[in-house]
Amino acid sequence: MTDAPCVTASAPATVANLGPGFDLLGLALESPRDRVTARLVPTPGVRIVRQEGDGGRLPLEADRNTAGIAALATLARAGIEAGIELEVEKGMPIGSGLGSSAASAAAAAYAVNVVIGGPLRRQDLVAASMEAEAAVSGRHADNVAPALLGGLVLVRSTDPLQVLRLPVPEGLVVVVVTPDLEVETRRAREALPDRVPLGDAVKNSANLATFIAACFSGDLGLLAECIEDVLATPARAPLVPGCLEVMAAAREAGALGSSLSGSGPSIFALCHSTATATRVRDAMVDTFAIAGLDVRSLVSPADCPGARTR
Amino acid sequence: MTDAPCVTASAPATVANLGPGFDLLGLALESPRDRVTARLVPTPGVRIVRQEGDGGRLPLEADRNTAGIAALATLARAGIEAGIELEVEKGMPIGSGLGSSAASAAAAAYAVNVVIGGPLRRQDLVAASMEAEAAVSGRHADNVAPALLGGLVLVRSTDPLQVLRLPVPEGLVVVVVTPDLEVETRRAREALPDRVPLGDAVKNSANLATFIAACFSGDLGLLAECIEDVLATPARAPLVPGCLEVMAAAREAGALGSSLSGSGPSIFALCHSTATATRVRDAMVDTFAIAGLDVRSLVSPADCPGARTR
Repeated sequence: MTDAPCVTASAPATVANLGPGFDLLGLALESPRDRVTARLVPTPGVRIVRQEGDGGRLPLEADRNTAGIAALATLARAGIEAGIELEVEKGMPIGSGLGSSAASAAAAAYAVNVVIGGPLRRQDLVAASMEAEAAVSGRHADNVAPALLGGLVLVRSTDPLQVLRLPVPEGLVVVVVTPDLEVETRRAREALPDRVPLGDAVKNSANLATFIAACFSGDLGLLAECIEDVLATPARAPLVPGCLEVMAAAREAGALGSSLSGSGPSIFALCHSTATATRVRDAMVDTFAIAGLDVRSLVSPADCPGARTR
Repeated sequence: MTDAPCVTASAPATVANLGPGFDLLGLALESPRDRVTARLVPTPGVRIVRQEGDGGRLPLEADRNTAGIAALATLARAGIEAGIELEVEKGMPIGSGLGSSAASAAAAAYAVNVVIGGPLRRQDLVAASMEAEAAVSGRHADNVAPALLGGLVLVRSTDPLQVLRLPVPEGLVVVVVTPDLEVETRRAREALPDRVPLGDAVKNSANLATFIAACFSGDLGLLAECIEDVLATPARAPLVPGCLEVMAAAREAGALGSSLSGSGPSIFALCHSTATATRVRDAMVDTFAIAGLDVRSLVSPADCPGARTR
């Protein structure tokens, strides 16, 4: 089957729940990326024939694996009954708050769409990938949307799915620090309150509104005043040892703001330059070390591409 | 005392709690306006020597009247111990959801600042006027900020006070319909829930974020998808007979969206043209008539000036 039409696509890690954008704002990172190869074969249906980098932890059944579900949803949306074999290379840790399931889904949807002749738009692929997310970690699109579209994305609505790419202020850089600790998305969801004080709802709306205004006006000073998440991070911080201290250390080292990435345990910080980002990363790594946690870290521009071939 | 330095200023009615901007978004209307004359006199202190148009309902004591409190706060912020006589002409009904107390406060602060030589900036006058609001109807700035600054204003924070003028999409027009019915701000506040479902908080943030993006991009189609207020209007609608029907009638007649103005009973609608606004106004007036309420109505551009002399 090696001569069969074959496309390899990749999609990046993403920071979801970005600051005041709980369930609403996500951002594509430069790396790491998941890679998915889709091969057209005669036998109808989707099969995962190889999966690497997951330590054997992810299911190979197509209807229980986000790459498989996204591939099936892409075929269904295109109205095409094809046979697809998938090879999945995980490039990022699972359960780290970097949108691992979304990256596999986005790469699979993108690869499948190309291999069947590109009938769908990127926006359709976001919808197909969201179905995969819904099956494994709840109906949200703030990882899959930036994983496909790139850049900084506002998920205006998931039903119907409506997403909006936001302008990224020039020079904006993201730091992400990932402690060696897994937070189950389910447990992180359970930590959330069912109801929040009206004042917190208003404050979150004000912060997100200011964030959007800062993006459109390119005002990094304004951005620095609105990154606080009052809805989810306070409830989830206890799941990550050192969380509040790491966020504080990031700000003290010059970050515009810092908050949990996705449902954690990764913590991101936004910075106005690469030089500052390097200092901020060091401060965050050192502070996690005080909490007894080993970490991986990365520094990425804030305006990175989404899914693409290779 | 007629030869004493004397300044007359006016400030407009405003729509606060604009759509998804509960406590956060306000907009200046073209009319009606309150007028305040400030006269410098030798005897220190602030006195209200005449008040018209309030039907004798507002107190004349300076420290219990929003014009008086704003005048006192303006002098205090300027660090000036002057004697000021105020004449207040109310141009709008009290308790109608059009920011009547804010208009008097803004006009008074503006007039006093000019008559003492203009030591304060408009932003300082917003802070002084907010003190007056806090004394009579709670600490919020989404009426006083547009009453002073004009246009469409996001109140990012009241403590410290931080406000941001937003770009107003070209051609945007506001309709306001005011039924002959008074809703006490206190009662409207009591109708609000202490806590809201997390999902509502997220939806409100999404709507407000989209509203801000629509303003910056001038996209009236986008604006039409995010004017719904899920925090306050559902709780307050029962205080205004016909409220939900009037909002629905506005949308059916072509409005981009509709919601309570301030704490009601006025209802505003945003429209993309004056022609549509006229149809929308007629539909809203007719629907209030079915609910048995007489109304006043107005149509105003959305980008109107704030406080000014005369």
